[in-house]
Formats: sequence, C-alpha cells, structure tokens
Amino acid sequence: MKNITLLGSTGSIGTQALQVIGAYPERFRVRSLAANTSVEQLAHQARRFMPDMVAISDVSCYNELKSALADVDIQVLAGADEVSRLAADADTDMVLNSLVGFAGLGPTLAALSAGNTLALANKESLVAGGHLAMELAAAGGVDILPVDSEHSAIFQCLQGQKISAVERIVLTASGGPFFGKTQDELAHITAAHALKHPNWDMGAKITIDSATLMNKGLEVMEARWLFDTAYEQIHVVVHRESIIHSLVEFCDGAVLAQLGAPDMRVPIQYALTWPERLPGDAPRISWEQLGSMHFAAPDREVFPCLDLAYAAGREGGSMPCVLNAANEEAVALFLKGEIGFLTIPRIIETVMNKHKVITTPDFDTLAETDREARRLARESAGMKG
Amino acid sequence: MKNITLLGSTGSIGTQALQVIGAYPERFRVRSLAANTSVEQLAHQARRFMPDMVAISDVSCYNELKSALADVDIQVLAGADEVSRLAADADTDMVLNSLVGFAGLGPTLAALSAGNTLALANKESLVAGGHLAMELAAAGGVDILPVDSEHSAIFQCLQGQKISAVERIVLTASGGPFFGKTQDELAHITAAHALKHPNWDMGAKITIDSATLMNKGLEVMEARWLFDTAYEQIHVVVHRESIIHSLVEFCDGAVLAQLGAPDMRVPIQYALTWPERLPGDAPRISWEQLGSMHFAAPDREVFPCLDLAYAAGREGGSMPCVLNAANEEAVALFLKGEIGFLTIPRIIETVMNKHKVITTPDFDTLAETDREARRLARESAGMKG
Repeated sequence: MKNITLLGSTGSIGTQALQVIGAYPERFRVRSLAANTSVEQLAHQARRFMPDMVAISDVSCYNELKSALADVDIQVLAGADEVSRLAADADTDMVLNSLVGFAGLGPTLAALSAGNTLALANKESLVAGGHLAMELAAAGGVDILPVDSEHSAIFQCLQGQKISAVERIVLTASGGPFFGKTQDELAHITAAHALKHPNWDMGAKITIDSATLMNKGLEVMEARWLFDTAYEQIHVVVHRESIIHSLVEFCDGAVLAQLGAPDMRVPIQYALTWPERLPGDAPRISWEQLGSMHFAAPDREVFPCLDLAYAAGREGGSMPCVLNAANEEAVALFLKGEIGFLTIPRIIETVMNKHKVITTPDFDTLAETDREARRLARESAGMKG
Repeated sequence: MKNITLLGSTGSIGTQALQVIGAYPERFRVRSLAANTSVEQLAHQARRFMPDMVAISDVSCYNELKSALADVDIQVLAGADEVSRLAADADTDMVLNSLVGFAGLGPTLAALSAGNTLALANKESLVAGGHLAMELAAAGGVDILPVDSEHSAIFQCLQGQKISAVERIVLTASGGPFFGKTQDELAHITAAHALKHPNWDMGAKITIDSATLMNKGLEVMEARWLFDTAYEQIHVVVHRESIIHSLVEFCDGAVLAQLGAPDMRVPIQYALTWPERLPGDAPRISWEQLGSMHFAAPDREVFPCLDLAYAAGREGGSMPCVLNAANEEAVALFLKGEIGFLTIPRIIETVMNKHKVITTPDFDTLAETDREARRLARESAGMKG
C-alpha cells in the first residue's frame, strides 16, 4: 500500500491522478490532498478518498473548507507552509506535486528534504530551483519521477539504459494551436483562441504556454535537470499528432521513443507504479488508422519563447526563475485580456534583460527573485508594480 | 575482450559484423569464422582478423581454402558438422549466427548446448526449432540476443521492462518493393525486380522473403519464441520508411519503439555490446527533414505468405519447419527463374497441406521434415524430387 500526498488535487493532473488512484484501491491510499482555492472540489475529493489531512493554500478559504468537512475525521490545514508540511510528512510514501507555477518549488524541496519520493508534474520547480532540487535528491537518494508526458517518455526510454550512452534528447512539441501562423496572424489572438489546444486537455496556464512554445522551453530546462543533460543535447521537434511523446538518441545510432494516445493518465500512472506497469484503459493507437505522423522544425521567429528559455537555461543561476516568473505574470495578464499574445515574449525578454544573474541562489533568494521579476513584468506591461 | 565466433561471415550480416568488430579491436577478438562457399572472401577476412579457426560448410571448397591460408597459423575446417563444432567451442564468448536458412539450426543448438551466448541473425533456426532452442537456452541460462532489426528493436524496448506487462508486439514491415501492387501486377515479376528492396541492403533470400512478406511471417514466429508471446499478441503493420524498427505496447497504454536509420550495424553492434552501447557511426535521423512516417495494414490477399506463416506458427510442431523449407526451395526456384512470384505461396501452401504435424520434433526429425518438405516443394513446382 503506497501512501500518496497529492498536491494540486483539483487541477487537471490532480483529478486524473485521483482516477488512477481510485482504480487501484488495493495499491494506493491518499494520505493528504492540497489545492489552491477550489474548496468545493477539494471537499468533494476528501469525502471520496478520506485522506488524513487536507490543505488549502489560500488561507481565506480555510473556514469554508473546515465547515464543509466538519462531520468527517480529516485534519484541515491552510496556507502555503502547510502545503509544504504535507509534502514533508513522514507517513507519505510518495508526493505527487501537480501545483502550478513557482508555488510548487517549496513543496518540491520539502518532499525531497524529507526523503519522500517525488512524482513531479510541477515543471516550474525544476526550472527555477533545479540545482536545489537535484542536490537534495542526490544527497538523500530520493527518486524524482517525471509526470510530464515528455519527461515520462524520456524516463521510460532510459529504463535499462545508461545515461552516459545518451547522445541527444528530442522533446516533441505539438506546435500548439498556432502552428504555421505568422506573427501578423498572432497579433490579435485572444485567450479563447489560445485555450483551444489541438491534442491535450490541460489547465489554462499550461495551454497558453503550449501556444507560445514556452511550455516546451520550460520542458527543455526540466529535462536538463532530470536527466543531467547539456542544453546542446536537448532538441525540440514539432510533431503535430502528439503520438510520440519524446525520443532518446543513443551514441550507437539507436533511438528509443515512447508513444501512445495523448492521455495524461499514462504518465501519471507510470510515476505512481514505477518500476511496474499496471493495466490502464487509455485509448490504444491503431497504427493503420493513424496513417501518418508528421515532424517539422519549430518556428523560432514566430515563437521566440522557446529560445528565451534556452537562453535563460544556458545563463543559469537565477535567470530561469526570472523567465518563469515573468512568463507566469505575462500569461496571467494575457488570460485577463490585458496584453496581446505577442506581448508575452516581449515582457519576458525585457524582464530578463533587467536582471543581474545570481549564480547559485538559495530558496529565499529565488523567492525574492520571483517576486521582483513579477513586479518588473507587470511594470513592463504598463501595470502598477 | 570478447571472443566472437562468426558464422556466415561472408554474408551481409557477417561483413557488417566484422565492420563493428574491426572498429573495437580492444573489445572484440575473432575466435573463428565460418562461411558457406565464399572461399576467397573468407580467406581475405581470415587474414584481416586472424582467427584461430575457419570453417567452410561446403567440403568441396576445403582444399582451395586450405591453400589460400597455407602461410598463416589458422586451423582450416570443412563441413556443416565443423561449423556446429565452432559454435560449441569452449573458448568462444559469443556466437553470432548469421547463416541463412535451416542450415543455421544445428549451430544454434550447438552454441546453446555449449552455453555460448548467441547473437542470432538466423531467424530460421527459431522458426523451425524454436522449442528446442528456447529449452536449451532456459536450461543453461544462455542469453539469445536478437540481431534482426525488428527483434533487436523489441529487445531494446524491453530493457528494464517486464515481459508480463507486454500487451502486444507490433512488428513493422517496409512492405517490400511491391507494396500497393495487385496480384495481376505481380504475376510477371522477375527476381531482378524483387531484389530491389526500398530500404534495406540485404542478401538475396531475405530480400525475396521481404517482397513476399514471408520475411515478416518468419519474424512473427521468431518473436513468438524470443519473447514467449502468443501469436494473438503479435501484430504486423506496414511502415514504408523503415524508421520505426518495431514497437512494444504495454498494458498501461504506453508504447515503446526503437527507431533509427535502416542500418544493420546498429542491431548487430547492440547484440555484441549488450547491455552496453558503444559509439557507432550509423546515419542519424533528422526528424524535421524526415517530415513524415506512414503506416498501413499489410495486404494479406496479395501477400498470402504472411498468413501462411501465422497458420504454420499456430499449428506449431513441425509445421513451421515445413513452411520454412518449402519457402527456401520456392525462393531458390524463383531466383533461378524457374517459377513465378505468385507460385511461391502456392507451393508453400501445397506442401503444408500435405504435411501431417509432428508435435514436438527433435533435431533429426526436423532435418528429415526439412528434406521431405523441400522434395515436396520441388515436386509441387513440377521439378524432379
């Protein structure tokens, strides 16, 4: 029986993780659940899975959650620190961190410090604090199991293989809803357009990141940390059908790939059951009916976020944290209709240009860097800091 | 230092294996070489690699080989029994069996009996005698490392995975030079047409087998034995580009595939270096330039050899040996221009229909079955038995 702490349980990954967990009650028990603000859904999940503890990040939601769970024996907590405490809980076998954004870093570090195996869907915690997370994981011998479909694909391809034999990692990108468009065509895109992803049904933030290709940029940085790979060895190719989830090229010329229908339950379940595989009912591919798969180079001119991410990653230190924070703010402003689609990379670049890199920032420095980058992003967008 | 016995050294696989071996002189030593009839090439290889022994299957070639190597300290042997003796040699670490056809079975069984790790390119030895080979391998704990690109692909995908989690194996087929043709169009095909394979540069026999899809049928049977898989779990899909070398579908919905340029040095080298990978200079794929990959169902009406192989495999016992023998004879007759392309499956079906299955044939029974099936095949083609 594996005791799971699920952070971000009401999001897209969280709800699908609960589907997987619910399908194997003899294997998994929910130790605790945490969400950001979705009180009603969190209370509903708590009644269904009966964890020992639930936490809500937004302290203003505490009373509502407390009274919604007044009649059941579940400890109710509130605030970001309590979410990190759940991640570090000694009675947890695995933390699945599917929080969104920089907010995931604290719980990632807390889980690793406590020696809790980490199933990681929060890519931003590696983007911003990869050096801290990987150091803790190495020091404690703690496994980090990727949940992102691309990184799970790479991880699956690396089973039974030596990382030293890897020549190149190729992350596939769907290209998002705006593949093939020109800058001019993207000038008047609205959030509603950008939220229509061709293959994956995901949360709003990651869907916009997918449209700008920043999602792939963040994944490049995530791959750099998870697989201890140089940026020169991480390549991005557009693959419209999202059937090949990523590829690993080895020094002998062989390439391994993980494929499948775009269904996040597969990588979620693999992280939960690794190194085993359990039956799952994700749709199967009929190769004959699929007919063909396509590949193309990403358009780095129209989607500059990808190269901004490579630049931030190569710069290292605090720069990826800055890129991430500026991106989070810019995407939030775009979703509110306050800036245009093409302004997202402009804001990020402006904020990055203003930042003086700190070489090996600790958590508090990253938190301060994150705040300052957000302030600069809003300022750059013409908002009040 | 790994001592390699290379059987079939002058064929397509053999010469490429020597390229790999020659690239890593600090890793590999050639213990012995064996060929069927190519005396001059075998003598040339012997001078280059200085093995302890060489054998030529065709005893009539002995004197020529002996005098060609008179001035070097290499023991010269002749006859099929001597080839099997080389396979069983105690100073060999690995036997690479790339003999063509049923003739490979004896050396396969000899290597396994002697506990010599077997890199297997001779698929016919598993087709005809899979039950004998796998029993010896299991009893002696001897590794069989597949060299066929498809089986190497599956083997690579299974590293670090449990065979019990496999739902389905998908062998990819290029479709051969006659993909998309009708029966009428194939009626007047000559050997010269059939020898033009779109992707792979191989020997004549396997190239014809590739054109009839019998090669894929033999591979289905080979996969059944190598991976202990039911025929219901082995699927064939046409993939024209021969970039995906095969796929493994797991019970959780994940699929792993091995890809790469069609270059036999990759699977040959992997068998030689497994579980390690060493640098190799096979061409790399540029995914962007590749553009697309295509899939289609094989045309089982136009290419009945595939279903004949499934039928023989399901029937089991001595039937696959009969199918293989009839096919070897029919292909030889086609290559000599004595029968038409469409007559190949008709001969095989006729011979299969005349055969009364022996459930668990031993080697002598298989040898007798092979001879009788060849006689029937020639008879069925209107030749003297």
